[in-house]
Amino acid sequence: MKIIRSLTAMTAWSEQLRREGVRIGLVPTMGALHEGHRALIRAARLRCDALVVSIFVNPTQFGPNEDLAKYPRPLSRDRALCEKEGIDVCFEPTVEAMYPSRFQTTVALPAIARRCEGEVRPHHFSGVATVVTKLFGIVRPRIALFGQKDFQQSALVRQLVKDLDLGVEIVVHPTVREADGLARSSRNIYLLPDDRIRAATLYKSLQAGGEAIRRGVTDGATIQSEMAQVLKKESAITIDYLAVCDPATLEPLLSVTRQAVLLGAIRLGSVRLIDNILVSAKQARHKL
Amino acid sequence: MKIIRSLTAMTAWSEQLRREGVRIGLVPTMGALHEGHRALIRAARLRCDALVVSIFVNPTQFGPNEDLAKYPRPLSRDRALCEKEGIDVCFEPTVEAMYPSRFQTTVALPAIARRCEGEVRPHHFSGVATVVTKLFGIVRPRIALFGQKDFQQSALVRQLVKDLDLGVEIVVHPTVREADGLARSSRNIYLLPDDRIRAATLYKSLQAGGEAIRRGVTDGATIQSEMAQVLKKESAITIDYLAVCDPATLEPLLSVTRQAVLLGAIRLGSVRLIDNILVSAKQARHKL
Repeated sequence: MKIIRSLTAMTAWSEQLRREGVRIGLVPTMGALHEGHRALIRAARLRCDALVVSIFVNPTQFGPNEDLAKYPRPLSRDRALCEKEGIDVCFEPTVEAMYPSRFQTTVALPAIARRCEGEVRPHHFSGVATVVTKLFGIVRPRIALFGQKDFQQSALVRQLVKDLDLGVEIVVHPTVREADGLARSSRNIYLLPDDRIRAATLYKSLQAGGEAIRRGVTDGATIQSEMAQVLKKESAITIDYLAVCDPATLEPLLSVTRQAVLLGAIRLGSVRLIDNILVSAKQARHKL
Repeated sequence: MKIIRSLTAMTAWSEQLRREGVRIGLVPTMGALHEGHRALIRAARLRCDALVVSIFVNPTQFGPNEDLAKYPRPLSRDRALCEKEGIDVCFEPTVEAMYPSRFQTTVALPAIARRCEGEVRPHHFSGVATVVTKLFGIVRPRIALFGQKDFQQSALVRQLVKDLDLGVEIVVHPTVREADGLARSSRNIYLLPDDRIRAATLYKSLQAGGEAIRRGVTDGATIQSEMAQVLKKESAITIDYLAVCDPATLEPLLSVTRQAVLLGAIRLGSVRLIDNILVSAKQARHKL
């Protein structure tokens, strides 16, 4: 496995392979790799000839009061996982190389970015869109894989690639969960033992919303309220938002008649968790 | 010469040639090609193996009260010029293909964009940055050429390519002028005969600023005032701005000690004209 830190060396490696017709895959990460990333990497392996994992804790997608400084950076363990999974290149650019002095360009998707996570984290998605555009420019993959856990991010990246004609195929891989349903996340390690047990309630709440839809409930507000009821049983949990949205546009759905994404974000102590599930409306499933 | 209107056909053409190691050049234009474009095309020819000229009157870089609707579109004459100059592909995307429904991504360079043209045309450069990013994504050139007449645009594109790692070499070609010094522009045809004569005063004003610098004047405000004096002799001319700026950042220079760009924009009747020249400070030249 090659470890590449220089942007130009990364591009040179990719350009050489592209000329030889090699299909390059990219799994962009912020490191602190877990089973979710491993699943992404394995899914990517099946879809490309050469695989790049980027590890970059992107400062521009963190807000001023967020956890940039304390975000976990277990680099040698991450490299070992990449090595074991047969990654070709571990791309580890520095913040200085990615954002040199006079850097000023921002990429924004105002419609998708304003909902859900965007309401709580106003600059987050502009940071994501900008760094993804940069990573695609540097690595020049044919395909890139994202985890469904960050659903809004994956919807944003799909729209970004379409809008800016970036020519990268986007694959969204299902969320990997713990036995109790908690979505795997680099931030789970910060949960205190009792909160770790409570954390699974987020997924249970989404499932309750999904059950309601499968029972035939179509009203968005009713579904949202069924999700909220589950979470309200745990007084330690603060709800950031619960939403029933169109999977492509992230617009809230007043009525669920086709596919919907149920999204939630909660706080447990100092830890913030997000999760989501895709559900098809009863009538839509009957039509299949 | 191929005429390509489809985005995917354009990318397929480029990808095929890139795999063969062909160096693709792009001259992005809004059509209404004149001697300035011809010079760009000829300069491009010397620097690449295959040349694409794009013709696209980009709506997102026009303000609501600007001349989008009446912008000249002499397509068959443009194609004939391209054919004669040995262009390989004339790329003519439609507005609908470039900006389909749900299109929402914007690319912005707030620091460079806020000066000069950006003050008068607040959304102009975001439109330029977005369409250039798209054109580079679709055509995937190794090199792209821009005219110095739109100096701020070329500075913005250089910074954009650097910031988003677009991997395209940017060449800025000197402005082509009429015998009296007026910069060639697609909008010159709208000048009434008397205004056409007065229009050359803009270049004379920039030259006066250049003369001042060559005489040893370093104070930005003094240089600006010498430029203004020339224009004020023509009462039919309205000055939009005159500026003495750093060529890379477009920041106004209080003192000219190295290279400066002198920029101006005027209105003559309903026609708006811009121009600029690059000048090196007396002391900087002595150091050479």
